[in-house]
Amino acid sequence: MTTYEVQLGERSYPIYIGSGLLREARHLKNHIRGTSVFIVSNDKVAPLYLDTVRHLLDSHRCLHISLADGEAFKSMDTVNQVYTRLLEHRCGRDTTLVALGGGVIGDITGFVAATYLRGVDFIQIPTTLLAQVDSSVGGKTGVNHTLAKNMIGAFYQPRCVIADLDCLDTLEARELSAGIAEIIKYGLIRDSEFFAWLEQNIQSLLERDVEALTYAVHRACMNKAEVVAEDERETTGTRALLNLGHTFGHAIETGLGYGQWLHGEAVGCGMLMAARMSARLGWLQEAACERIERLLHAAHLPATLPDTLKADQFLEHMALDKKVRAGRLHLVLLEDIGQAVLTSEFEPAALDATLKDFCSA
Amino acid sequence: MTTYEVQLGERSYPIYIGSGLLREARHLKNHIRGTSVFIVSNDKVAPLYLDTVRHLLDSHRCLHISLADGEAFKSMDTVNQVYTRLLEHRCGRDTTLVALGGGVIGDITGFVAATYLRGVDFIQIPTTLLAQVDSSVGGKTGVNHTLAKNMIGAFYQPRCVIADLDCLDTLEARELSAGIAEIIKYGLIRDSEFFAWLEQNIQSLLERDVEALTYAVHRACMNKAEVVAEDERETTGTRALLNLGHTFGHAIETGLGYGQWLHGEAVGCGMLMAARMSARLGWLQEAACERIERLLHAAHLPATLPDTLKADQFLEHMALDKKVRAGRLHLVLLEDIGQAVLTSEFEPAALDATLKDFCSA
Repeated sequence: MTTYEVQLGERSYPIYIGSGLLREARHLKNHIRGTSVFIVSNDKVAPLYLDTVRHLLDSHRCLHISLADGEAFKSMDTVNQVYTRLLEHRCGRDTTLVALGGGVIGDITGFVAATYLRGVDFIQIPTTLLAQVDSSVGGKTGVNHTLAKNMIGAFYQPRCVIADLDCLDTLEARELSAGIAEIIKYGLIRDSEFFAWLEQNIQSLLERDVEALTYAVHRACMNKAEVVAEDERETTGTRALLNLGHTFGHAIETGLGYGQWLHGEAVGCGMLMAARMSARLGWLQEAACERIERLLHAAHLPATLPDTLKADQFLEHMALDKKVRAGRLHLVLLEDIGQAVLTSEFEPAALDATLKDFCSA
Repeated sequence: MTTYEVQLGERSYPIYIGSGLLREARHLKNHIRGTSVFIVSNDKVAPLYLDTVRHLLDSHRCLHISLADGEAFKSMDTVNQVYTRLLEHRCGRDTTLVALGGGVIGDITGFVAATYLRGVDFIQIPTTLLAQVDSSVGGKTGVNHTLAKNMIGAFYQPRCVIADLDCLDTLEARELSAGIAEIIKYGLIRDSEFFAWLEQNIQSLLERDVEALTYAVHRACMNKAEVVAEDERETTGTRALLNLGHTFGHAIETGLGYGQWLHGEAVGCGMLMAARMSARLGWLQEAACERIERLLHAAHLPATLPDTLKADQFLEHMALDKKVRAGRLHLVLLEDIGQAVLTSEFEPAALDATLKDFCSA
């Protein structure tokens, strides 16, 4: 097992990464301050791991809720369901929430923890690759609004993250690829050496080779933790680089309706769009762009958009992004593999042409 | 004009108190970082002051929403209305929210600011006495859940508070008394000298004498700011003392249905219940208890509960309070005027007898 300490002053916390972590109680118990625990999971994950986690907490008052699975349920309605259950069980401020599931469960649970009684403790147990390398690290919590994705939320850090790699054994192939998309992202924005490693080892990851997965999750978390430590609340622009592919990706998700594509799939295709736009602007060399395309393709990530997405509608969805400032759209684009930049200083024509290239008229 | 700086490190902010503050743009403008302002008000306050505030912001993009008035609308539904309007207007992270109204508007607006795009700036312009001396200071934001009051929220500090005493001219007598209840609270929990001043000057406050009001608002804000600076997130117990009368008061509000009594009225009666219970326990001298009763009576605050409230139901509502820890109800009680204590170490019989005294069977 390896441990990373995310450095955020009084809000610092460890990420435990390894195999068999859910067979030991100590990581979990060491970070629970009260006697009451409330596990939030979903209908897909609960049958697999809920009993395991409850067994670790046999000396605590241990309650749970199992939500419907999927991004479509990452809503304020679901948050309200959890509030209601917490209140019905008279859960006080000494309750620790445990997020047991993928990114959606982590985002919902974190937001509930940030806002229930104005804040209670929470712990992340991510069970998907995407959640282990991305959404469980860094304290972004929240839900979707019917008008746009991830608009409601809070920065709120967990007490710890427990990433048991054994959970990846039960993952569908599509979800594995979605997680790999976020792993590739770290290579693209700040770690060209890692990108080269991924080019060499993509098959091993797809085959769920434990050694390869351990290395990839470890290096992804390290990259994310370093960025978050530098810019926790996304004020300097450093943290915004983590959104490579996300402005395009969110527009895909909004356009298709939440839950049609997995978040990682949308980000994968969004990174491809960002790379092509960067190449079109002359910022990114063609050869580098082709390497990116090849790796995303090898990871079985989608490279084309459904016909239902129209270019003008796509632009509308992008305009709702949180990175719009003073009316100007800011995008994360690439100058090289391992070198991303957040900017509004681009030719709008390059964006239009890229959208035309990917979308139907 | 006087200014108090609430000392919270990087989250410090000034409270401006005085007459005519809404005739000057500088306090407001000095604390707005972007170009876009979104004013949240209600149907009662907007006709009185919205144009005045918009006039101060003529160089900004200035949007607004006017909500239905009253505690009954302090709900997640209302919060969602504001989110939707913000998204429809494409408001980005550089937007500053302005809360123009009483405590309900401040609580809702602060919560929206804490959670929209994971946090945007906000400014408080409290227009009721209660909001000026209490709810606008200290960063508690949130809304009610159908099962209990103030259960959903966040600690989130404004950029500044502008308390224009001229706004109190339009206040109904009931609302003035409700504000005075919270002012009396500061005397009871930590400032016996202020309590004695209030005994001497209660008539002047009820007659809205500007000098008396200035002194009272000033001293109340100072007391609150000192407590909040000591214990921002209510972890040491110091801040919890501000909840004198509130556990009883919230049970009154929940039992009657939000909006039947004003919050300050419920707190006033709740403080009387806390005082009587403290006297029953032998912690508070009878003479002190009588002084408290006399002052609350002189402030025209209700001293009896409607017949519809039953003792056992009342206890149920109290058990939902945020101060329940490890299953034990914690109450703020009095050892003297100016000396409050947060404790779960009391004879349950004293609570039962107090409830029987105030409620029907």
